[in-house]
Amino acid sequence: MSLLVVGSVAFDSVKTPFGEVEEVLGGSATYFSVSASYFTDVCMVAVVGEDFPDENIELLKSRSIDVEGIERSRGKTFRWRGRYGYDLNEAHTLDTELNVFADFLPDIPERYRDCEYVFLANIDPELQMEVLSQVKNPKLVACDTMNFWIEGKAEALKETLSMVNILIINDSEARELGGEANIVTAAKKILSLGPETLIIKRGEYGSLMFTDSSIFSAPAYPLEYVYDPTGAGDSFAGGFMGYIANIDNVTEETKRQGVIFGSTMASFNVEDFSLNRLKSLKGREIEERFKFFKKLSHFEDISTV
Amino acid sequence: MSLLVVGSVAFDSVKTPFGEVEEVLGGSATYFSVSASYFTDVCMVAVVGEDFPDENIELLKSRSIDVEGIERSRGKTFRWRGRYGYDLNEAHTLDTELNVFADFLPDIPERYRDCEYVFLANIDPELQMEVLSQVKNPKLVACDTMNFWIEGKAEALKETLSMVNILIINDSEARELGGEANIVTAAKKILSLGPETLIIKRGEYGSLMFTDSSIFSAPAYPLEYVYDPTGAGDSFAGGFMGYIANIDNVTEETKRQGVIFGSTMASFNVEDFSLNRLKSLKGREIEERFKFFKKLSHFEDISTV
Repeated sequence: MSLLVVGSVAFDSVKTPFGEVEEVLGGSATYFSVSASYFTDVCMVAVVGEDFPDENIELLKSRSIDVEGIERSRGKTFRWRGRYGYDLNEAHTLDTELNVFADFLPDIPERYRDCEYVFLANIDPELQMEVLSQVKNPKLVACDTMNFWIEGKAEALKETLSMVNILIINDSEARELGGEANIVTAAKKILSLGPETLIIKRGEYGSLMFTDSSIFSAPAYPLEYVYDPTGAGDSFAGGFMGYIANIDNVTEETKRQGVIFGSTMASFNVEDFSLNRLKSLKGREIEERFKFFKKLSHFEDISTV
Repeated sequence: MSLLVVGSVAFDSVKTPFGEVEEVLGGSATYFSVSASYFTDVCMVAVVGEDFPDENIELLKSRSIDVEGIERSRGKTFRWRGRYGYDLNEAHTLDTELNVFADFLPDIPERYRDCEYVFLANIDPELQMEVLSQVKNPKLVACDTMNFWIEGKAEALKETLSMVNILIINDSEARELGGEANIVTAAKKILSLGPETLIIKRGEYGSLMFTDSSIFSAPAYPLEYVYDPTGAGDSFAGGFMGYIANIDNVTEETKRQGVIFGSTMASFNVEDFSLNRLKSLKGREIEERFKFFKKLSHFEDISTV
């Protein structure tokens, strides 16, 4: 089934303990789409500036991503500059130039409106609702958000949350949104806002998925070298939603597998800067890493001893 | 099989966001023994002062712990005072009075020397080696340590590590001992010091077990209320070693199960102050929580979809 994503396309300048890159391709919709493209057909809605090179569009097309929804506006493409210390769990933003992204008003192409799976990347919750008003009858909607909107657009965000099935955020966002230091209590409060499922990404500590009646704890892939964490969260969401859209069956079991595919794609993504690792994966590599996760977390039940 | 533990017995004064206790029973050997007593016979070696009440000895005896190795010395029992903030992963020590523990020189009773399973709790690595010189031919030796010894007795600690099978430490200790910020790289360096197995406890993030050829990632039990983390690490070690000693079969599979039993016992322990929760568990409760861990981390392999 087709998967629609609405989010950002950016030029990132990133410094980590392992190196430095200037104005490389990034953005939430980009990481999400390339990651999801290994599982299903992706329709991408975003905005870029006049300075956006065709080769980047070609890269997305080479992953069979539908780029009709990428609007080219007058002005410059969104730029982000950040650095990571040895604690690669936290990004320090040095500079943000919104440029054309400041006036982004998503206009969903007619033939995208039937997409049954929708991911609202981290954008203004009012725009997230605008997207939902344009799509017809999706089976499953997931969204991301961040502290900036939790603090600055609390009411709009709550309205969005009442309209989505799945919220995918990180640890500190969950604690802030839930207003609780304890992650389990925070999760309960967030579920009471509307989403049936909450996925909390915890970087090197893996992730947690909560529903009203279940908790799933997924390990992180044990990486010796994390070159650049940028885009890990969106790669995760892309692997998760891509798998679910492809299998077209939303159950506790497929969501758990989706979380593992999400972790798999995020773990590949951080092995290099920009989309360098993510853009040329083999299906076999993805499958092997999924199976590694299985082995990583496996233990025998006691009845079998 | 019998399990020998050598460590501390203490009076703890602890303040957490959930309450406060004064001079309650604690100490590494105490938490370890009570936890392990649900699985196997425990022989305990420690020192207490003249002020140590008989009712505490009776508590240990009620768990069928062999207390012959608890020496009563002239002076006062070891005391520790600490507090935890909302980040319950980290203890802030306010005061330590070593008292009789300052001159602790473990003398292993003759009939303990045949114990096939040995746990050296967090004491001076020179004393850990002294214990190893007194035991006859153990099948498996595990030990704990802390930053104080990593920094202050690096050479003695390395000698100890070359003599043990399993090292059980926490996250920050592993990074410090391995001299690496990345936990996987740190683990490799630690394994090169001697132990065949390294278990890293990460509080609310679960634990990792490393060998030369495998990694196991265990989730934490998702607790809404952590009343007092004191003794969690020793309860973990007690559950792990108790299970292994009882089953008397050291394989990758039993060690993985041991880690889950360790996590199970630690999760009970933090539900109340001192040994209040740990001292009166039912076998059924332990089994149910183990099974909860199984469900918590389970996902179907992709071949079955």
